[in-house]
Amino acid sequence: MLIEDRLKEIQEKIMKKVPKGIKVSSVEFEGPELVIYTDDPKTFADQDDLIKILARDIRKRIVVRPTILEDPERAASAIRHVVGENAGISDIFFEADCGEVLIEAEKPGVVIGKNGATLREITREIGWTPKVVRTPPIESSTVKQVRQYLRAAHQERKELLKRIGRRIHRDVISKDQWIRVTTLGCCREVGRAAFLLSTPESRVLIDCGEKPDSFEATPYLYVPEIHPLSQLDAVVLTHAHLDHCAYIPLLYKYGYEGPVYSTPPTRDLAAMLQLDYLDVVNKEGKTIPYSSNEVKEFIKHSIVLNYGCVTDIAPDIKLTFHNAGHILGSAISHFHVGDGQYNVAFTGDLHYGKSRLFNPAVNHFPRLEALFMESTYGGAQDMQPSRADAEERLYGVF
Amino acid sequence: MLIEDRLKEIQEKIMKKVPKGIKVSSVEFEGPELVIYTDDPKTFADQDDLIKILARDIRKRIVVRPTILEDPERAASAIRHVVGENAGISDIFFEADCGEVLIEAEKPGVVIGKNGATLREITREIGWTPKVVRTPPIESSTVKQVRQYLRAAHQERKELLKRIGRRIHRDVISKDQWIRVTTLGCCREVGRAAFLLSTPESRVLIDCGEKPDSFEATPYLYVPEIHPLSQLDAVVLTHAHLDHCAYIPLLYKYGYEGPVYSTPPTRDLAAMLQLDYLDVVNKEGKTIPYSSNEVKEFIKHSIVLNYGCVTDIAPDIKLTFHNAGHILGSAISHFHVGDGQYNVAFTGDLHYGKSRLFNPAVNHFPRLEALFMESTYGGAQDMQPSRADAEERLYGVF
Repeated sequence: MLIEDRLKEIQEKIMKKVPKGIKVSSVEFEGPELVIYTDDPKTFADQDDLIKILARDIRKRIVVRPTILEDPERAASAIRHVVGENAGISDIFFEADCGEVLIEAEKPGVVIGKNGATLREITREIGWTPKVVRTPPIESSTVKQVRQYLRAAHQERKELLKRIGRRIHRDVISKDQWIRVTTLGCCREVGRAAFLLSTPESRVLIDCGEKPDSFEATPYLYVPEIHPLSQLDAVVLTHAHLDHCAYIPLLYKYGYEGPVYSTPPTRDLAAMLQLDYLDVVNKEGKTIPYSSNEVKEFIKHSIVLNYGCVTDIAPDIKLTFHNAGHILGSAISHFHVGDGQYNVAFTGDLHYGKSRLFNPAVNHFPRLEALFMESTYGGAQDMQPSRADAEERLYGVF
Repeated sequence: MLIEDRLKEIQEKIMKKVPKGIKVSSVEFEGPELVIYTDDPKTFADQDDLIKILARDIRKRIVVRPTILEDPERAASAIRHVVGENAGISDIFFEADCGEVLIEAEKPGVVIGKNGATLREITREIGWTPKVVRTPPIESSTVKQVRQYLRAAHQERKELLKRIGRRIHRDVISKDQWIRVTTLGCCREVGRAAFLLSTPESRVLIDCGEKPDSFEATPYLYVPEIHPLSQLDAVVLTHAHLDHCAYIPLLYKYGYEGPVYSTPPTRDLAAMLQLDYLDVVNKEGKTIPYSSNEVKEFIKHSIVLNYGCVTDIAPDIKLTFHNAGHILGSAISHFHVGDGQYNVAFTGDLHYGKSRLFNPAVNHFPRLEALFMESTYGGAQDMQPSRADAEERLYGVF
């Protein structure tokens, strides 16, 4: 079925469920989401469980957006006007490709208002959906730069998400059923993590890292089943360390045009480390494998997902991130293939135990047939000492 | 290094070892062999261990042939004249691409003569190297047809072996070291045996069979790493049953141009069964996947090897066949990869135990890191009853 016909069919299905009086002006695939555009998002949202019911029926992640959004500059001044000086707003970031506005404030409670009254007023005034976060104690120049760049690229990104969305929701053609994993690095060696997950229908690359202390060894990107890179469905990044993320920008240099899925912190940390990597390679007197332009491509093509959010990334593959407990944003990537056909997860680096910074890695999945688990430096006879023991021994050393 | 330069270098090396007076007119790669052409093969052969020493130094399979071979028709009448009527010669088959003549006779002893005197006389008379076999009790029309076809195609085959030989002996380029096996069928299913053995340098397909009772399911020939078929280095056929050989002719339809290695009986039996397969498919009212022309291509591109003969089939792969005890010609295919890097064997169907027809399958290899063993219909708890028990139970059934 043509994607336009599919969208028309979905729109008709939605219209039947939506109460009279609410106009659905259009529906569109944008990245992994199905976006319903309506003149009256407020009334839409007021319908009990309507979005949940639609999501269950259509089996897509659904978001509702106003057909027309207020101009960001005017919207920003409207927000400041509604909220008042007292909240200490430090940044207002419009995520145009999802119709959300991120309000960073020293006093988030003031922005939210009593029982969310202020937030509702903001929505009424500007159409954008407000999200509130506390101003961090130390300003991150990386986060600032990433936001600036996404702001500048938002029109391009809108087109890009539409293209990706249509690719994700294409028809499944193949009659065969199989999945396979090609290890492109980090097996019987340290570093250059990269796995290719293939089905007859689609191909997903998990991580694309460097080999520590080697400035030349990329993963085995010449294996035939990864080519053409332009036809790869998705890249999934488990976490921001260089042995997992360093060569993702290189993919854009060689023709990849698709999305990189990661958690929000992973995107920002990875971009920071990639730029630092280029700097280090350069200072070592080696040829840099890509430029900051390709890091920008990575940011532009990033689609961030929170833990637990089940997301279509290909016609026959759903991705869910789970906390890996390793670093900020680190995620075990769980893939559900076909309609209940197979489940496989890649842990990336993980920490199996509660630490002072993070919850332990998730080790419970609804279904799992195969697990690819990081075991770098772990020997068959090795034992992890308890935290208490380890700390005691550390005190002994001092 | 260019292959012409390589050959020149080898020729110079040989000249240094060969006693004065013996002229080496040229050397050439023909299929997996290095052929030394000389005006005086007889004197060459008389030098103690000269060929063995050369083979060890150059690390190639070496054969010596006269520069000029007697015309087959005149050679045939010369053979009949030397041997006499008494031997009961039933066929004389000139294998032009290897300079050998196969003499099929009711009394092989007469052709050989006392201490091989008659054979030596034949060589002196005609230049061809004679091989003698006993006339089979029942004439095989398949063997006859295969020989007829090879006779007709011998000029084309000469060119083809030269092309294959040059490809086998190309330089090794890649610095990486890995091998991998892609299963293209017959795993967790019955039939359509096919495995792809890949290294950074070369690719070999082992078997390409049909799925019994399915007239459409070929092995998974659409996997990217097998393409382009024209760049495949070799096809190796373990034995002649259709679940291993039926789709080999199809490869020629889709662009394969390289050799098929098998034992001599496997080539002839496979051709017979493939033609029968086309007949059955046709009678079932299905579309035949290829025609008898492609069966001819298979025969034309066949290179037969006896058990135990170590043979270069790619710059970094040596093949050795070992008896598999399953049917006439069935062979466990052992691959030695790189210079001692890795050894892997594919059993094909095998019979592990002495039967009334065959010796048991070979289970001792100089080195072996991985074994792909046929286990069709074999369950984890299954026990093979002894031959005596099985025969007793069979008598009980009668």
